Amino acid sequence: MEWISNSQIMIVGLGLMGGSYARALKRLGYSISAIDCNEQSIRYALENGLIDRGYTQPDAAALSAADAVIFALYPGVFRNWIETYQHLFKSGALLTDVTGVKSCLVYDIQSILRCDVEFIAAHPMAGREVYGVENSDDRIFRDANYIVVPTERNTPHAIDWCKSLGRILGFARIAVLSPEEHDKMIGFLSQLTHCIAVSLMTCSDNRHLADYTGNSFRDLTRIARINDEMWSELFLMNKEPLLQQMRLFSEEFDELRRLLENEDVEGLRAKMRLSSRRRAEFDQ
Amino acid sequence: MEWISNSQIMIVGLGLMGGSYARALKRLGYSISAIDCNEQSIRYALENGLIDRGYTQPDAAALSAADAVIFALYPGVFRNWIETYQHLFKSGALLTDVTGVKSCLVYDIQSILRCDVEFIAAHPMAGREVYGVENSDDRIFRDANYIVVPTERNTPHAIDWCKSLGRILGFARIAVLSPEEHDKMIGFLSQLTHCIAVSLMTCSDNRHLADYTGNSFRDLTRIARINDEMWSELFLMNKEPLLQQMRLFSEEFDELRRLLENEDVEGLRAKMRLSSRRRAEFDQ
Repeated sequence: MEWISNSQIMIVGLGLMGGSYARALKRLGYSISAIDCNEQSIRYALENGLIDRGYTQPDAAALSAADAVIFALYPGVFRNWIETYQHLFKSGALLTDVTGVKSCLVYDIQSILRCDVEFIAAHPMAGREVYGVENSDDRIFRDANYIVVPTERNTPHAIDWCKSLGRILGFARIAVLSPEEHDKMIGFLSQLTHCIAVSLMTCSDNRHLADYTGNSFRDLTRIARINDEMWSELFLMNKEPLLQQMRLFSEEFDELRRLLENEDVEGLRAKMRLSSRRRAEFDQ
Repeated sequence: MEWISNSQIMIVGLGLMGGSYARALKRLGYSISAIDCNEQSIRYALENGLIDRGYTQPDAAALSAADAVIFALYPGVFRNWIETYQHLFKSGALLTDVTGVKSCLVYDIQSILRCDVEFIAAHPMAGREVYGVENSDDRIFRDANYIVVPTERNTPHAIDWCKSLGRILGFARIAVLSPEEHDKMIGFLSQLTHCIAVSLMTCSDNRHLADYTGNSFRDLTRIARINDEMWSELFLMNKEPLLQQMRLFSEEFDELRRLLENEDVEGLRAKMRLSSRRRAEFDQ
């Protein structure tokens, strides 16, 4: 399919991300259906004009009419969903997702999928600390990156289609990465940072310190409010790349601690200078 | 002294913090002198109306006219300065500072100080990633906390005077802590967070990842641009409280890593829920 105005789009999973996709695509004039087992979510989306039609379970007629299906499910249920309901897809339909981990999922889904539909994986790197369709907001895409994650099985047509989706959703930047590159990147940039924020928040009972905080602690723990169900799944599904990043960070942190223990001022300053230089480049 | 309009204020050290104090106090109508060995800083402050008089070395007449002396020096040179020039202070003068560590400095300075002047320590918990008087800006005080750090030697009068200084500078909140409480708090809230940010920035060569970053990495490393000379001094002067906080964090981070290694989903989720609950309370 192309992104033409009479395309029928189905969103499976109407949480924060599914809802934000719905808002953006509805505003662009597409006809949007959604499936979510939570009746309240469907009702909210209908009443607020986010979707045109809603279902609390997979609907054969709606699915067989969809040119594009966007999966915004928890990673753990995504594979099962495909296995159970893929016979309902329209022939030629394009499928994509929003899942935050890729290697453990993409190859598997592509291998079980009917050969007359195509799944092209994507990761919209946007989010909020709150969740649910009620908190959905497509402005979160504006300054964010959209990663298309193709494998060798994907066609150039599907890759282009997926890039276009990122563009029309309003993402600031579209990139393409392999599943392995994606998972390493996400292990470092997103999961390691969440591990650090959680550890900083749980390592001591620091509630009374809120009175004295400067902005540093607030910044480092902004992401410490975390959806435990979703993030524990994501961590486990990206276990090895994340463990590798955690080890690298731990070793570096221990090295800094040793420099302080040994009062190695030059060593400390060298680390700080490297950090400052890299962060300055990062800001450019 | 009281904060009356004809008070003569001397600022020793005209960097980011000294300059920001000068801006705020000058606007309130006080007569401001400043000493800084950097002639350019003095010239900038005079040309931009931050101060009334400037000196590139301690000036006997200016110091003996000052009712209040504010030290905004690097911690390592502060003690020496007092030892060398304290004979120039006006009898009855009140001294305060902006130093980010306290136990290692306050008792020592109070014990060597002339008995007809009083030093009351304070820590304005504000800052920027840039430095120098050219970047000074008293708006950084607006949402920030000002901590008065008295010892048993301090008089109620000096403590009240120091609180008033925090208020007229425009700080959002004034608190009082002992030097030991202050150093533990700062070890955790400020120094540990800077250690984490530096380690995250230096643990792998991540410059190319800037293209893909979400906001988490950016938030956690905002403070990774660090003045290596000042911060290495501050770390060393607060060595034991900081090492203690680093150990607590490391143990917690290792625990999270073990939970992931063992695929202990319930353990991971319990940590995430504790983290989320504490962060939510923190935001209230």
